Amino acid sequence: MANPSPGNSITLRVSAPSNFTVTSELAAAAASAGAAVTALDIVESQHTSIVVDITANTTDDDHAERVRDALEALDGVHVLHVSDRTFLMHLGGKLEVTPKVAIRNRDDLSRAYTPGVARVCMAIAEDPAAARNLTIKRNTIAVVTDGTAVLGLGDIGPAAALPVMEGKAALFKQFANVDAWPVCLDTKDTEEIISIVKAIAPVYGGINLEDIAAPRCFEIERRLKEELDIPVFHDDQHGTAIVTLAALTNALRVVEKKIEDVKIVVAGVGAAGNAIIQLLLAQGAKNVVACGRNGAINRSETYTDEHRTWLANNTNPDNFTGSLHDAMPGADVFIGVSGPNILGEEQVAAMAENAIVFAMANPTPEVDPVIASRHAAVVATGRSDFPNQINNVLAFPGFFRGLLDAGMSDITDDMLVAAAVAIANRVDDSELNASFIIPSVFDPHVAADVASAVANAAGSTLERTQS
Amino acid sequence: MANPSPGNSITLRVSAPSNFTVTSELAAAAASAGAAVTALDIVESQHTSIVVDITANTTDDDHAERVRDALEALDGVHVLHVSDRTFLMHLGGKLEVTPKVAIRNRDDLSRAYTPGVARVCMAIAEDPAAARNLTIKRNTIAVVTDGTAVLGLGDIGPAAALPVMEGKAALFKQFANVDAWPVCLDTKDTEEIISIVKAIAPVYGGINLEDIAAPRCFEIERRLKEELDIPVFHDDQHGTAIVTLAALTNALRVVEKKIEDVKIVVAGVGAAGNAIIQLLLAQGAKNVVACGRNGAINRSETYTDEHRTWLANNTNPDNFTGSLHDAMPGADVFIGVSGPNILGEEQVAAMAENAIVFAMANPTPEVDPVIASRHAAVVATGRSDFPNQINNVLAFPGFFRGLLDAGMSDITDDMLVAAAVAIANRVDDSELNASFIIPSVFDPHVAADVASAVANAAGSTLERTQS
Repeated sequence: MANPSPGNSITLRVSAPSNFTVTSELAAAAASAGAAVTALDIVESQHTSIVVDITANTTDDDHAERVRDALEALDGVHVLHVSDRTFLMHLGGKLEVTPKVAIRNRDDLSRAYTPGVARVCMAIAEDPAAARNLTIKRNTIAVVTDGTAVLGLGDIGPAAALPVMEGKAALFKQFANVDAWPVCLDTKDTEEIISIVKAIAPVYGGINLEDIAAPRCFEIERRLKEELDIPVFHDDQHGTAIVTLAALTNALRVVEKKIEDVKIVVAGVGAAGNAIIQLLLAQGAKNVVACGRNGAINRSETYTDEHRTWLANNTNPDNFTGSLHDAMPGADVFIGVSGPNILGEEQVAAMAENAIVFAMANPTPEVDPVIASRHAAVVATGRSDFPNQINNVLAFPGFFRGLLDAGMSDITDDMLVAAAVAIANRVDDSELNASFIIPSVFDPHVAADVASAVANAAGSTLERTQS
Repeated sequence: MANPSPGNSITLRVSAPSNFTVTSELAAAAASAGAAVTALDIVESQHTSIVVDITANTTDDDHAERVRDALEALDGVHVLHVSDRTFLMHLGGKLEVTPKVAIRNRDDLSRAYTPGVARVCMAIAEDPAAARNLTIKRNTIAVVTDGTAVLGLGDIGPAAALPVMEGKAALFKQFANVDAWPVCLDTKDTEEIISIVKAIAPVYGGINLEDIAAPRCFEIERRLKEELDIPVFHDDQHGTAIVTLAALTNALRVVEKKIEDVKIVVAGVGAAGNAIIQLLLAQGAKNVVACGRNGAINRSETYTDEHRTWLANNTNPDNFTGSLHDAMPGADVFIGVSGPNILGEEQVAAMAENAIVFAMANPTPEVDPVIASRHAAVVATGRSDFPNQINNVLAFPGFFRGLLDAGMSDITDDMLVAAAVAIANRVDDSELNASFIIPSVFDPHVAADVASAVANAAGSTLERTQS
């Protein structure tokens, strides 16, 4: 059974008889129904009765209902109202568009708007590069989705994807002061998505593609990279790859192995899997076996899609053929970006000594991390309720901060590697251990470190290009 | 020669010898060069010298240069730096995207983002109408342009249009707490613009079309109205028409005439002219003569475009044929939304007693308002440096506030008229006179009055539809 999560936090407002033990009885009843009580506030007190707000984490809506019933079952206790704290947080949306200039009087209006704005417009018409100084382009990116691969929810459409994109924009601002705007597109047509993003691009200094289903996402990213003069980042690929490489770098430090020596099995050859593998190779990995639904990608088979063909030609040096399970014995590293529970204890046990397991499927990992940790030296997941959460929040805000600061038009592998190294380096040798290979997403230095690493890598790239 | 304007406000930082009269000499020198000095601050004072910031309105860049030279010509005075206050205001853009929720810890993250956000997404996937409650759609509109008809500047492109759209978004927020986002499209293709706006619509509760050239703008508006389930407002049409009708309503109060009795000559049959005429007719005007470049639109001619054909069939009851100048004698009202200086004193003098002249071309009106006022009882322009500025800022923020509050999917003539009446009614009988027919754009009650008038009109429309 799942653990109670703050994502399912509820506040129950209850009236109860006023007596010395009532609050502890309420807390006990909620706890015995499986809720994790996080707060208890008396909001009203009278001679014979009190009103109490009990805030508690639950596992899901049904569980919340059982907690309510458990309180109602107490003598004289009535649940007046249950509010869902997650829904409350999203009410009315999570973003607003705020003027940076106050327009208090006619003078302000004449400068911010007509007639003064005309001179600013003409300055840009005469020198398009001035847009970076004189408009929001300097600090603004688009978070673009078609709603086809949202979280683990699949194709839920652009409207239902908006809460995620808003949340992402909030994280961009909070962690790296990047202004990000959600663009949820009501089309799944690759060419249409490409032409729309190109058409809206004048407002933006960068494009963050998000939760677009593979293989469409590859073509969209490739074409936009070619055809736009602002950087295009696909978080499901690049963000995931950066944080995975950061975590792997530190995990290898823990087990004292080198990336060029280890055998790495990657389960999942979608957007994330492909990008992770490319970055691992860029960082020196030699022995990567990529497994899709039909087992290891190998050169004895012919693939119709270019990504599998590329993988066949650039991974799996021993041309291993067989299933994921067959590939596991002797592997040093397992990286899962696929689906729930595809590995059992047996497969982890068959790995090499001091194995590393990254089971990143959300919300249910490829293998139960508790079971994996019986045999593997380092275990990481995408979840916040286990140690070593591999979370893209560590990468994307700082990465775009660096791109915008450096005014870059392209993203290179060097920048991705530099970002991964910056994240890995946030974990000091004195802090590093098997349960702490990756910094907290709330580490206040991560975004700035990533930003300057990216800007530096951008600078080196420019120098090389110019010399 | 143009008057110095706050849109051309500069701050000159000068060093000067320290003596008792130096500041007045500096101010006098700037003034004698034609600058309107608005502030003078001593920023540094030493025994023998001072540094002074002189802020002054100028007419244009050349004039600013002459002001600088006039100061430099003073004995011992050096201009250290000239800053353009308009450009300073636009530096880095005028908008930011701000989270409405703080993400301070893992609990916040779990609710604003993963995993909690998944439940919010699913609620919208199951009930699309929930998007209005659970996302920014509730309070957010798009300000959409292709950059082809920006202010009086013409086709300057989407990047150069952005400062205007940012300013507009700032006004939406400041005056009516509407979150507005600039969408500057790098395409002039009507069908492409329509399909892009449809594709980005999931994020928005309304669309404000802005500065799109006619006749493309008509088709885009018509099709989007048909094909979208959120309201589509074309500010150059609807906004201008609302404020024009508001001003005319009060001008007619001043001269004690009725809209159904007056002869109205409209110069300009583009986006604004068409919308104004439609709204005048909706409000009861009977005798409107619409003049394009080739004179009055009439039924003796055949027009290839549908808008002129419509005008020929629905205006000009006497089927007058001839030029704009020929149409003016005896007219009670002139409304210009065309170009600079198309009328002389003679044409205004030939109008009926107690004539009304709205010369709204920007920045140079159809007739010099000072000359017009020699013969007309009421004169209004689009400029802030004359009385009676007809400014769309009076309409668009409150109009969308009303639409969003009422959750409307369409805009009706009733709403446009209601907005105009609400603006007109902000001028009390005790305030009304020939130089005050329209409230100030900074009247803090206008937007709220417009919003509730629109919402009420929306309510009546709904009732009629349902009964």
